[in-house]
Amino acid sequence: MIASTSPQKLEAGAKSLKKTALITAIKTPYLAGGKFDLRAYDELLDSQIQNGVGGVIVGGTTGEGHLMSWDEHIMLIAHTIHSFGDRIMVIGNTGSNSTSEALHASEQGFAIGMHAALQINPYYGKTSTTGLRAHFSAVLAEGPAIVYNVPGRTGQDIPDDIVMELAAHPNFLGMKECTGNDRIASYTARGVNCWSGNDDEAHGARHGAGAAGVISVTSNLIPGLFDKLMNGPADPELAASLNELIQWLFCEPNPIALNTALAMNTYPTAGRCA
Amino acid sequence: MIASTSPQKLEAGAKSLKKTALITAIKTPYLAGGKFDLRAYDELLDSQIQNGVGGVIVGGTTGEGHLMSWDEHIMLIAHTIHSFGDRIMVIGNTGSNSTSEALHASEQGFAIGMHAALQINPYYGKTSTTGLRAHFSAVLAEGPAIVYNVPGRTGQDIPDDIVMELAAHPNFLGMKECTGNDRIASYTARGVNCWSGNDDEAHGARHGAGAAGVISVTSNLIPGLFDKLMNGPADPELAASLNELIQWLFCEPNPIALNTALAMNTYPTAGRCA
Amino acid sequence: MIASTSPQKLEAGAKSLKKTALITAIKTPYLAGGKFDLRAYDELLDSQIQNGVGGVIVGGTTGEGHLMSWDEHIMLIAHTIHSFGDRIMVIGNTGSNSTSEALHASEQGFAIGMHAALQINPYYGKTSTTGLRAHFSAVLAEGPAIVYNVPGRTGQDIPDDIVMELAAHPNFLGMKECTGNDRIASYTARGVNCWSGNDDEAHGARHGAGAAGVISVTSNLIPGLFDKLMNGPADPELAASLNELIQWLFCEPNPIALNTALAMNTYPTAGRCA
Amino acid sequence: MIASTSPQKLEAGAKSLKKTALITAIKTPYLAGGKFDLRAYDELLDSQIQNGVGGVIVGGTTGEGHLMSWDEHIMLIAHTIHSFGDRIMVIGNTGSNSTSEALHASEQGFAIGMHAALQINPYYGKTSTTGLRAHFSAVLAEGPAIVYNVPGRTGQDIPDDIVMELAAHPNFLGMKECTGNDRIASYTARGVNCWSGNDDEAHGARHGAGAAGVISVTSNLIPGLFDKLMNGPADPELAASLNELIQWLFCEPNPIALNTALAMNTYPTAGRCA
Repeated sequence: MIASTSPQKLEAGAKSLKKTALITAIKTPYLAGGKFDLRAYDELLDSQIQNGVGGVIVGGTTGEGHLMSWDEHIMLIAHTIHSFGDRIMVIGNTGSNSTSEALHASEQGFAIGMHAALQINPYYGKTSTTGLRAHFSAVLAEGPAIVYNVPGRTGQDIPDDIVMELAAHPNFLGMKECTGNDRIASYTARGVNCWSGNDDEAHGARHGAGAAGVISVTSNLIPGLFDKLMNGPADPELAASLNELIQWLFCEPNPIALNTALAMNTYPTAGRCA
Repeated sequence: MIASTSPQKLEAGAKSLKKTALITAIKTPYLAGGKFDLRAYDELLDSQIQNGVGGVIVGGTTGEGHLMSWDEHIMLIAHTIHSFGDRIMVIGNTGSNSTSEALHASEQGFAIGMHAALQINPYYGKTSTTGLRAHFSAVLAEGPAIVYNVPGRTGQDIPDDIVMELAAHPNFLGMKECTGNDRIASYTARGVNCWSGNDDEAHGARHGAGAAGVISVTSNLIPGLFDKLMNGPADPELAASLNELIQWLFCEPNPIALNTALAMNTYPTAGRCA
Repeated sequence: MIASTSPQKLEAGAKSLKKTALITAIKTPYLAGGKFDLRAYDELLDSQIQNGVGGVIVGGTTGEGHLMSWDEHIMLIAHTIHSFGDRIMVIGNTGSNSTSEALHASEQGFAIGMHAALQINPYYGKTSTTGLRAHFSAVLAEGPAIVYNVPGRTGQDIPDDIVMELAAHPNFLGMKECTGNDRIASYTARGVNCWSGNDDEAHGARHGAGAAGVISVTSNLIPGLFDKLMNGPADPELAASLNELIQWLFCEPNPIALNTALAMNTYPTAGRCA
Repeated sequence: MIASTSPQKLEAGAKSLKKTALITAIKTPYLAGGKFDLRAYDELLDSQIQNGVGGVIVGGTTGEGHLMSWDEHIMLIAHTIHSFGDRIMVIGNTGSNSTSEALHASEQGFAIGMHAALQINPYYGKTSTTGLRAHFSAVLAEGPAIVYNVPGRTGQDIPDDIVMELAAHPNFLGMKECTGNDRIASYTARGVNCWSGNDDEAHGARHGAGAAGVISVTSNLIPGLFDKLMNGPADPELAASLNELIQWLFCEPNPIALNTALAMNTYPTAGRCA
């Protein structure tokens, strides 16, 4: 069990996290009135653990963290740590486009025992390269973090030279990179740890481009198959067989289709009506 | 004095707002400790009014509203209405990528007397076209609004057919459109009111593409010249002479250069250090 | 119109407020879902003004301000100023048992144009006399204020020597004193402005003990009679005739009976169900 | 380790908590800038556990919870559970004078693993006996709770008949009673579990009036002696010897003297400057 926030424990956790091949950007189920459905959430988490998932991002865009108040968000991270933190790595999405909010949330997240943070660049407001450096060096000082690059959402790519600088930071665990396997291969060739943020490219990222694995949406639905895809040997046939599901899951901006799939299969009101 | 939220007054204000050619996305000056510098803000507002500006967007991206807590944001709108609401149109940026936050903030903004809202599509989280319709029809029901399209920040363009639907809503005042004058011309040809969101294209938008005017960043610095550019006759020479300043103002993501310019000229600590 | 927060205007307002004999601790009507019923509120305010009420406390205990979030509370003050601030004095209950919350709320209240604040001593947490001095000198620095002493709610009486010190502060407007007319007479004899906080003693306070008037609950229901009681000559017969209603209104902790009375007479869901 | 919020675990915890004789209303140490000093807090907790303390109230009035934002408060409970929840019973002070805030905070507290809640009656705002019933039956439904009666702070005594009703609720763990040992003896004679809330009467409560023990302020400073006093046999000599310290600790409203004592002995900035 990861017992506390002692530097030794955090470092051991970070080391183990770097090699975790399958991390799920976990969905947040909701009750009809808008509250979290923690019973459904706990079932989902338990099933993830039993099917080989090694870590979860709590309150990512898949989990609709951008629609939560911070107190809800921190509570969900605390709940996850409390109930599952000795069985799975818990990465809180305590990033924000406001540096001060990211600092506050990350500080709180580490105080309640999360193993690592997911840190995004300032989306929507955007910033200069000087601003990117200032933002990331501030938030990385709070604790171990995965840096998230998704220009299709943020409107701003984190450039190569900034990534290479961040990679030298002792709290840098790796990139969640959504711009494709060429970029990932270029990073891993220079020793930068990476996870693919694209499910349809995950097999190639892991078995071709040197990625540690994937931070996946699809593994909410089929954790066991993604475990095989990431933790087993290269298996292009399996990868190909998953393609149709993955295409469907991204037919609308995520997590719309995922919410639909979970609502059809398991939870009556999977998406937040807000 | 704009006395209240009575439907008649709101409607009269909306009618007048639709023809307001020069609206400034007003900067928020800060004190060193992070609080608003309301004295500097009031000087800036007063100077805007005296130099022909007809409206202000309060807490837009230029005003760094995305870095404010909602209570600060609403307070700033209330302060602006209270101190200047009888001399200038006050448009609160009460939009959000969370529909429920946008609803709450817009309801509060109209309760405290703002003349109109600026409404953005759900950036970063993004949504389907069904989601766009649901989001905008919810927030437009709160009161008169300008709809803001800036795919370079949001990661998602508001498509033509959605705009044409929104334009039929009685509370729709027009688009703040950042994708260029061709799009604006196409909208205005079909009777859709527009403001350009790009200062370097404002002259062409106003005098060529049928736009009502501009929602401007540069007018924080040179309101009188922008008044001439928008409320005077076409003046390509004047437009050309402003180009160098405008280019410089957008050398980094706005409002970085504007903060610098204002800090150099007027206010010691213009940008929020957060 | 009270145009802004300029020191001259605030001072003029403060001077006029000191002599305002009838101030209502205004009730907040609610819709069934828990939101403010601003339509009912506006009707209530309008009727208050038409019946001779000179000022309102917004979000006092009668208005259930302690059950509002601060953003709701500030919004209600802003709404009141915006819609009625040129016809009635608006005193925001921006006090708190947390000094930092009282400071933040009072600063916001003055920035949006409230004429004065109501400041309470730190209830529940309580403090030392040194703490009382520190709390009140901090909040009085924000702007004109009425200091509120109600030991039956706070668990701690503001002692005589602290009141005499506060009375020397330029922003001190007077005491809202709930401990009876002997105390009030003792204060007014030494030049300390006072309002009675007890409706059943209001006539004696005003016409016998030297009080400026009353901050009243009952005037929500019968503003005209309280206007006569406070702004007319001494009228013991009138005072006696109101006694039964007043006794009934305080049969349970206020505002329970007032909510009931208003719900029976005017508003379907007067009390906050929370 | 208390692993989760399963009903069985909660019930087992509740059963054990009922017999916990020494519970500390734990102090919250602060850094100079106003943030929690979690390092000092952890040292204090560790020392409490090593000296025989069986439970802690997190964010009570002694811990200045009424000066925390809810997100800070919940975070502190989560931190305490995460770091010490397998070694000590953690009771979150998630009560409030607002029923809806108490419900929200208590729900969050149980979701993050707290063993029980401390629930206060609505102070300052006060309520009717009908209101007391409604408030307590709502919050007791959230999970195991100690009910706190301290009329010197709340301005309203929880009367005998309400207590007898609450005592029948399956989630009722007992009273924290501050009105003296006669009342406690009267309750315990009728089977109502009680802790004294007065350190100077703790020995009599435990060894004479049938109380389970004490919820103590003084045990922040001398946990070992209070362990002996509560968990050992009656020892009037020891009790008498502690009297002088206890008197001093309550020379000003708690936690002023405690903050001073801890600042003098251990922590440079023990009290919150806010």
